[in-house]
Amino acid sequence: MTTALATEQLETLHATKTMRALVFHGPNQIAVESVPMPKAGYGEAVIRVTLTTICGTDVHILKGEYPVKPGLIIGHEAVGVIHELGPGVSGYEIGERVLVGAITPCGQCSSCLGGGWSQCGGVPIGGWKFGNTINGAQAEYLLVPSAQANMAKIPDELTDEQVILLADIASTGFSAAESGEVQLGDSVAVLAQGPIGLCATAGAKLRGASLIIASESNPIRKQVALKMGADIVLDPRTTDVVAAIKQLTNGRGVDVAIEALGTQATFETALRALRPGGTLSSLGVYAGKLSIPVEAFAAGIGDYKIVSTLCPGGKERMRRLMELVLHRRVDLTPLLTHGFPLHQITDAYDLFSKQLDGVLKVAIRPSQPRPLKPGDEQC
Amino acid sequence: MTTALATEQLETLHATKTMRALVFHGPNQIAVESVPMPKAGYGEAVIRVTLTTICGTDVHILKGEYPVKPGLIIGHEAVGVIHELGPGVSGYEIGERVLVGAITPCGQCSSCLGGGWSQCGGVPIGGWKFGNTINGAQAEYLLVPSAQANMAKIPDELTDEQVILLADIASTGFSAAESGEVQLGDSVAVLAQGPIGLCATAGAKLRGASLIIASESNPIRKQVALKMGADIVLDPRTTDVVAAIKQLTNGRGVDVAIEALGTQATFETALRALRPGGTLSSLGVYAGKLSIPVEAFAAGIGDYKIVSTLCPGGKERMRRLMELVLHRRVDLTPLLTHGFPLHQITDAYDLFSKQLDGVLKVAIRPSQPRPLKPGDEQC
Amino acid sequence: MTTALATEQLETLHATKTMRALVFHGPNQIAVESVPMPKAGYGEAVIRVTLTTICGTDVHILKGEYPVKPGLIIGHEAVGVIHELGPGVSGYEIGERVLVGAITPCGQCSSCLGGGWSQCGGVPIGGWKFGNTINGAQAEYLLVPSAQANMAKIPDELTDEQVILLADIASTGFSAAESGEVQLGDSVAVLAQGPIGLCATAGAKLRGASLIIASESNPIRKQVALKMGADIVLDPRTTDVVAAIKQLTNGRGVDVAIEALGTQATFETALRALRPGGTLSSLGVYAGKLSIPVEAFAAGIGDYKIVSTLCPGGKERMRRLMELVLHRRVDLTPLLTHGFPLHQITDAYDLFSKQLDGVLKVAIRPSQPRPLKPGDEQC
Amino acid sequence: MTTALATEQLETLHATKTMRALVFHGPNQIAVESVPMPKAGYGEAVIRVTLTTICGTDVHILKGEYPVKPGLIIGHEAVGVIHELGPGVSGYEIGERVLVGAITPCGQCSSCLGGGWSQCGGVPIGGWKFGNTINGAQAEYLLVPSAQANMAKIPDELTDEQVILLADIASTGFSAAESGEVQLGDSVAVLAQGPIGLCATAGAKLRGASLIIASESNPIRKQVALKMGADIVLDPRTTDVVAAIKQLTNGRGVDVAIEALGTQATFETALRALRPGGTLSSLGVYAGKLSIPVEAFAAGIGDYKIVSTLCPGGKERMRRLMELVLHRRVDLTPLLTHGFPLHQITDAYDLFSKQLDGVLKVAIRPSQPRPLKPGDEQC
Repeated sequence: MTTALATEQLETLHATKTMRALVFHGPNQIAVESVPMPKAGYGEAVIRVTLTTICGTDVHILKGEYPVKPGLIIGHEAVGVIHELGPGVSGYEIGERVLVGAITPCGQCSSCLGGGWSQCGGVPIGGWKFGNTINGAQAEYLLVPSAQANMAKIPDELTDEQVILLADIASTGFSAAESGEVQLGDSVAVLAQGPIGLCATAGAKLRGASLIIASESNPIRKQVALKMGADIVLDPRTTDVVAAIKQLTNGRGVDVAIEALGTQATFETALRALRPGGTLSSLGVYAGKLSIPVEAFAAGIGDYKIVSTLCPGGKERMRRLMELVLHRRVDLTPLLTHGFPLHQITDAYDLFSKQLDGVLKVAIRPSQPRPLKPGDEQC
Repeated sequence: MTTALATEQLETLHATKTMRALVFHGPNQIAVESVPMPKAGYGEAVIRVTLTTICGTDVHILKGEYPVKPGLIIGHEAVGVIHELGPGVSGYEIGERVLVGAITPCGQCSSCLGGGWSQCGGVPIGGWKFGNTINGAQAEYLLVPSAQANMAKIPDELTDEQVILLADIASTGFSAAESGEVQLGDSVAVLAQGPIGLCATAGAKLRGASLIIASESNPIRKQVALKMGADIVLDPRTTDVVAAIKQLTNGRGVDVAIEALGTQATFETALRALRPGGTLSSLGVYAGKLSIPVEAFAAGIGDYKIVSTLCPGGKERMRRLMELVLHRRVDLTPLLTHGFPLHQITDAYDLFSKQLDGVLKVAIRPSQPRPLKPGDEQC
Repeated sequence: MTTALATEQLETLHATKTMRALVFHGPNQIAVESVPMPKAGYGEAVIRVTLTTICGTDVHILKGEYPVKPGLIIGHEAVGVIHELGPGVSGYEIGERVLVGAITPCGQCSSCLGGGWSQCGGVPIGGWKFGNTINGAQAEYLLVPSAQANMAKIPDELTDEQVILLADIASTGFSAAESGEVQLGDSVAVLAQGPIGLCATAGAKLRGASLIIASESNPIRKQVALKMGADIVLDPRTTDVVAAIKQLTNGRGVDVAIEALGTQATFETALRALRPGGTLSSLGVYAGKLSIPVEAFAAGIGDYKIVSTLCPGGKERMRRLMELVLHRRVDLTPLLTHGFPLHQITDAYDLFSKQLDGVLKVAIRPSQPRPLKPGDEQC
Repeated sequence: MTTALATEQLETLHATKTMRALVFHGPNQIAVESVPMPKAGYGEAVIRVTLTTICGTDVHILKGEYPVKPGLIIGHEAVGVIHELGPGVSGYEIGERVLVGAITPCGQCSSCLGGGWSQCGGVPIGGWKFGNTINGAQAEYLLVPSAQANMAKIPDELTDEQVILLADIASTGFSAAESGEVQLGDSVAVLAQGPIGLCATAGAKLRGASLIIASESNPIRKQVALKMGADIVLDPRTTDVVAAIKQLTNGRGVDVAIEALGTQATFETALRALRPGGTLSSLGVYAGKLSIPVEAFAAGIGDYKIVSTLCPGGKERMRRLMELVLHRRVDLTPLLTHGFPLHQITDAYDLFSKQLDGVLKVAIRPSQPRPLKPGDEQC
């Protein structure tokens, strides 16, 4: 048998190769199905996903609130093992464990070269491709574009579970404190302690805030908030949060307020809780119109800053965040409350979207969680 | 006659000494009247005002839209000659010409020591005292608090007219470009070309913007906009400003959009004209609620920054701005379109508030415009 | 007896009132002596010093390496109780406990109004006045200039010992990380772990460094370095520090290197330990010439930043640092290794300058350490 | 004849295709020779060079002061027409005029993804590849690596001569003002007015400096300095530059001093000319050791910043700089004093390296300067 024939047969085999993945077919229509395996082209890589998770954005997609094309594999957070490397991807080896960012900048467009990696391509959130404009991570295998820029090797000391949340939620949550330019000794309010708010709380602590005031009414989340760095957690159902924040800061207001829910109410609370000249760092994803209260004529919108942040991307960001975990500056594993194999991911969606059973984040394990040795790779 | 007696008589004389000033008595009630001369206490100075002007804020006060106490002398921009120095004010001499900022920070409170001079005292715009919480500049004499921090000597080469607008409008206008962190090569839109917008245009030019797109429909202001640095002026009555800006930037949007009118419409235009990741720098003074359009669910409020800026204050700021004028980086005299003596200031208010006769800013001259020699000071 | 006479007698009494203080009479000539009590003038306050300490700079003065006028009371770090308030100082009460910064900016000169509080007056380190250009803190009482700007009330929850090091060494040490702009996930080297280096280590931790590599050979200081946040301490006597740092950072070099000793050797180590584009943050006080190695022609001095920082000052800085202690972000008390009453301060100088007995910082207690109630104030 | 054969023949033809280029053979050994034409691989492009120039660095290479491999084509500045596009380069067309930066970042390594494009690859100045580690621009054709990231289309309105200096010298010169964070109203000194110093002067003007003090003794360069934005040019042969700068700034010193020569003398002048807390922005390429004078013990190296800057790279940078030229913010053509065809480039090296005839920069034109239409491309 000639080599040419062998190659051809292999190609045929490959074409028929399939994997299991969660496919979006339309609002409220998702299913785990067999789909063709991806194949790495120039500058691309395929990773075998060992751990992924579900993001609030995925739930919005599921509900039809954020439109994606039917037939798309969704999900944008992935830890995995390199399965295939396309030409032009150097410095990596098959079998290495990598963390892939939710944002996959190309590094070579004007936005990227201006430092706006999350706006890759010049389109707002154009850097977010997985499960948005290309197939995503809730699958056995994931095709990584611009692989050279977007795969960060995971130190051996770290488990998949320790790093998976760095792909999106922690990177975004921490960035609220970074974009808000939290300084040593700042007082910071973090409004809402869902997964993203909890990460923002951790980020404020990491940046050297002296006082972190969280607001949250869910008792389990209140407990985790304290663990992530909050000094006090106010319950918005029973407390006038703005008044309490003013009191806790001797009438001054906080230096930075982080909005982490995406509602008009929390946005207003954040704005009113600020000291004059303070910064509102917005993480929330808002619907419709957002209204800025302008009470006093002369103040206009005061002397405030409002910054909003998308998830920073790129392998260097992933590397830096893994360093923080490696050296025990932060531990995000308390947020991974539940685990599911891929074939039960629809159950995970149900639990997560309804916030049942104290769920914070779910671990989805498409295959066995530990990396295989290169020789074991046989799919 | 003993010295003691002489002093006493002098004090009596002083008590009865009066000056002319514009007094606010309530909405739509202002009059030039005789009021007691101010006297410099510890750390204070009295300047003889040689040039002052009217600000849009003064018109708001006049209309009752911004509340101040009846009986107050209004106005917050002053060029003058030092008439009296209280104890504790060193490094100055009677007869020196000085520019006094609209914002008069104490320099010694927590806000000032944190770099928030315009929030002096911890109250929003607490640094704005003249014609707000203390007597102001539309008078023959002005009592300057924290004089050590707030009087900047005027270089001999500069006329009163060249520097008066630096007290407030130019300092604020330029700061829109500074707070918006305009970078070399940025494209900048400045929405509305009233006096503050014109100064923002000049500020964007000074900071190294490569392309400045102004919007304005008033034909005189359009002309001045070009003189202050605009590359093109769009007419919002006849042009879709957002579309035109996108076209002028090859579909990209501007890096920084400066809102200089204070309306929902210009605010929205500014936001929509931005490139992904751009900055809206807000100068406008808004009334009621300001609404942020959040079209797309996923975008939330995008990856934008919204910064609002109050007038920076203090003598160092004044000195720096005068250096820009001295070395011909900017010339603001085209904005001073009309002149009035103090006793006709109500006419000036009428002209200015109705925007008649192509007025931009009015020069009010309480006394003769050139500085007297020390010996001449006898009021 | 008339009031006039009573006042006169009181003045006489006051003139003769004395206190104990450490007086510098020339190189190697210091003595605790009786000197006149200070009296608060306009804008000044007198505090009864309850705790002070000795700085490396004081040792330089003692040795004649930094010149001050003979007859001066030295020392620039003070915790105390307000004993007298001059006119013009409001918002404070006799008997309140305050922390006074080593740097006492006036808040009203051009440097201060430009944000350069430590350059108050426009002279390098002009903000450092205590024990340099005016009488200092190693005394029973201390006259505080620009008191309104420089006294920060101490929260009841904090002891004198918990805050005294914030006056200078911690403020300066932390600022090395702040000026070096340590970012989340940065690797940082801190070269030398004397008191200032230990505080820099704590500062790097507070700012969110992921990996802190200290260098120090003194075994006690090595232990404290780990307590203050170092992940590893290299011994420069037995280790090639540059090579070890490169290895610990996978060949990359650190993002920020903090020089905390003031020698050519540590400066060079810091520079060579940097990654391309890294920042050298210099705390050391150098003598003579400092040489920058420029090995490769093309590299010039590379693409580096070298920043040097003086102690930031003002009550707002002190307040922020106390907040960090209050909320347990940092504990500096392990650095206060020895205590002395004022009358034994020369013994303290001896111990401290010779670095005997594992000394880091000495606590000098001019009077009883706990604050008196207002009624008790009778000196 | 089959297609297969045709391709083969074409390949052979191609292999024998040659172009003219300046080849470095060792110190003081350069010659224009026929060398093989480059061929674009994946992600690469070949441009036909219409304009290039000689940099001071090239002279260092020629003299053997900076080592490159014999056989290398040198030069790193290029304007040209796209001649060939490798696979994976999209959004460009054959025949388009482009500016290629001297620094050609890959956009996908850790340095690039951390914003350190000029440190691409993690090696100092790893971003500088042309005429350093790969063949350069002093040739008829240039192979551009990471072409997607490094070719910026030239607006039709601009000539080759208007943009060629943006590739390196202007980008670097401007960056001195940017890295030095020149603020509105700053006073800036630019020490030496060679080509790079002249660009730094232009950069300081663009950033809004109020006073620009240049130092230079060459009479022609003094004239050009004034044209580029200097307010005054001091002659270091006849003037005490530090003293004159202090006098021109009322004893204060400049906010930012830019060193643009690379000597110990100018470095020291720059440092001494600074105000307390000022910034030295270093452009010079130094040899051997650079010494920081540390006169006063206490000052250490003061409260200064020293920043050094390599040429920023990437197509977005090029685009922004071209925008500045397009909108007439700056005109660099006065620096292009002489022109040569490629076959006379050794004469150009002679003139440039000896600074004869008032030369500033030389224009080298490998082919005709105007872009051909696509159909004309026949080499």
